[in-house]
Amino acid sequence: MTIYLERQQWLQNEMRKRGWSGFLVTHNVDIYYYCGSMQTGYLFIPTEGEAVYLVRRSLVRAEAEAAVAVEALGSLKTLGERLRARCAGAGVDAAAGETPLRIGTELDVLPVQLYVRLQTALPGAVWEDGSLLVREQRMIKSPDEVAAIRAAARVADGALEAVIPHIREGMAEFELMALIEHQLRLRGHQGLMRMRAYNSELITGMVASGASAAVPTYFDGPAGGTGLHPSSPQSSGRTLLRHGDPILVDIGCTIDGYLIDQTRTFVIGALDPELQRAYDVAEEVLRATEARLQPGVIAEHLYLLALDQVQEAGLSAHFMGYGADQVKFLGHGIGLEIDELPVLAKGFKTPLAPGMVIAIEPKFTFPGRGVVGVEDTYLITEGGFEKLTVSREGLRRI
Amino acid sequence: MTIYLERQQWLQNEMRKRGWSGFLVTHNVDIYYYCGSMQTGYLFIPTEGEAVYLVRRSLVRAEAEAAVAVEALGSLKTLGERLRARCAGAGVDAAAGETPLRIGTELDVLPVQLYVRLQTALPGAVWEDGSLLVREQRMIKSPDEVAAIRAAARVADGALEAVIPHIREGMAEFELMALIEHQLRLRGHQGLMRMRAYNSELITGMVASGASAAVPTYFDGPAGGTGLHPSSPQSSGRTLLRHGDPILVDIGCTIDGYLIDQTRTFVIGALDPELQRAYDVAEEVLRATEARLQPGVIAEHLYLLALDQVQEAGLSAHFMGYGADQVKFLGHGIGLEIDELPVLAKGFKTPLAPGMVIAIEPKFTFPGRGVVGVEDTYLITEGGFEKLTVSREGLRRI
Repeated sequence: MTIYLERQQWLQNEMRKRGWSGFLVTHNVDIYYYCGSMQTGYLFIPTEGEAVYLVRRSLVRAEAEAAVAVEALGSLKTLGERLRARCAGAGVDAAAGETPLRIGTELDVLPVQLYVRLQTALPGAVWEDGSLLVREQRMIKSPDEVAAIRAAARVADGALEAVIPHIREGMAEFELMALIEHQLRLRGHQGLMRMRAYNSELITGMVASGASAAVPTYFDGPAGGTGLHPSSPQSSGRTLLRHGDPILVDIGCTIDGYLIDQTRTFVIGALDPELQRAYDVAEEVLRATEARLQPGVIAEHLYLLALDQVQEAGLSAHFMGYGADQVKFLGHGIGLEIDELPVLAKGFKTPLAPGMVIAIEPKFTFPGRGVVGVEDTYLITEGGFEKLTVSREGLRRI
Repeated sequence: MTIYLERQQWLQNEMRKRGWSGFLVTHNVDIYYYCGSMQTGYLFIPTEGEAVYLVRRSLVRAEAEAAVAVEALGSLKTLGERLRARCAGAGVDAAAGETPLRIGTELDVLPVQLYVRLQTALPGAVWEDGSLLVREQRMIKSPDEVAAIRAAARVADGALEAVIPHIREGMAEFELMALIEHQLRLRGHQGLMRMRAYNSELITGMVASGASAAVPTYFDGPAGGTGLHPSSPQSSGRTLLRHGDPILVDIGCTIDGYLIDQTRTFVIGALDPELQRAYDVAEEVLRATEARLQPGVIAEHLYLLALDQVQEAGLSAHFMGYGADQVKFLGHGIGLEIDELPVLAKGFKTPLAPGMVIAIEPKFTFPGRGVVGVEDTYLITEGGFEKLTVSREGLRRI
């Protein structure tokens, strides 16, 4: 049985419990997760019976890639009867068409306009929000997924080590970022890093230094970065790397669809003692978090423990951003997208479980001075955790 | 008056005609278009009165960037009364709250989950799909927008010229792409190229050679590319550049938020005569299109004329893809996003007008052999057009 069929069966089992007729997977990343192909179309997984991938383009390519039956999408007008026929096994009378279909889909990403078209194509169908279900399933990674993330971690490390000899005073943030991206791409980074949340976008990560790193952004992360323009208000800008400024290098890449995320702090010369101490506290937070990183621990507890530790260190005001722009989390799930579950944040009562992959990123922001911190990506295992990122830790002095 | 206020007033005028109370702009790109900032939040433009930018984060940064009043977003629960208060001037009684608000928003991109939250926050409001209105407004570029696109064209050209000396046999597509991206980033490319359509994504463009370029993709464009993996099934892959293979270099970049798009065909050595002829026909199609490129011409006519020209040349089967994977357009609007209006395709009855910026890309696909073609980006002017791309044309021999 392929991993894709296993995933479909898990979803079918959940849909059976809920009395759904099937799941219309519309989002490219989710389609890939359930069938191994990402062509344009819809993947329909009936609760009973076999999935079908209805493809607009490229049909040829979907047939070569997908682990399910592939059919041409054709007109949306025929979609209703085709899905109904697929659900016939689930007690829906295909001919009479009297029982309304209950169809799950990803309402967290599906645009309203397309939803209305689908509603029109399937009159009488009841639509259920299956976003959380998919996101919760995707939270637990298979060995193949972990292998891809491990490969991405090696690529990120290789790229980082390759550029370190080139870091020098007077270089602009974006120049260092361009070098890193080049090295990542040469090592197989796919060039895109996907985020799920509306309006969210990601530019490989960031090189941000000194005061510029502490400039807050629209990005839902602890560090900011000026970016190059208000139309791209995050990540590396034109600030020049200066002696003594912390240089935050928060980078990731994508290998075989899967992302890695890591942060290292660099300095040309030495950090001033207050920032050096904050960096040390960041590593201490990471160590303390690691000490509790095992199945059964509640996600939010790790965040709350970090808050306590940071308060004892007198650094609460600087933790994960500053002032109104502090973000309220310590880490995030990562896989095909960078904003996966679980989130290490208040309100996330999920117990950690083997197979989860989580990026943990304690950072401290000092307005006008910079951001220091560290980030590693971890796999939760039966016995605790395995660190997937391989770049060596410690403040890196140039 | 700022350009942002002018844009708001244009929209207000259209809303007045439609009897709408206001527009809740939710999409990051549209928010930027109307106020010059792209922080996380909503921009509300009442039909009468002044716009307000309700920002979640970063408030500080929105205040520094935006050409409108900025307020903290706060709880969505208060959104209804705040918008109602802003609409008071439009004949809506803020206190009584009896007249239902009619609010436009971008239903082509807004996810259902968020839409439902907004509906809950504004009980009784009537929602209108304002997607087309915004996209039609954005179709006509201001001089500042054209200046950014011109700058992007120079960056694309500079990057291309810088990498040409490095093109050699045996180099992988992705290696050449990585070189181009590096040069683009060093020249100020923001690193992201935005697309509006659901599930659409873009990796700088592509270097694709020989048979690999003819492999169809999910991407809604005439050429394909294997990509690096089924999870990223477009653009450059691991195919090595070979003597005599056409090398399609379709690249873009983003400067000050605005995109350029251009394609040049390279060959190491010489193309076989059939592909060379197809390349020549592509340039002839571009010349014939240019000859009619002026205000008043109907967008679809340019596509239909190209179809005729291609048929006369006996190349219909190869035009803009092959077989089931042919795409049905000749060009597309471009600006803050790569998939803007107008589209040069059947059914697009829009007359061309000064200020439109359109990428025109006649290409021919030969399965197993490659893709040849050319693409330039044009500004429609009062007197005809101005070509914005500056890279020299002609098949480029290495």
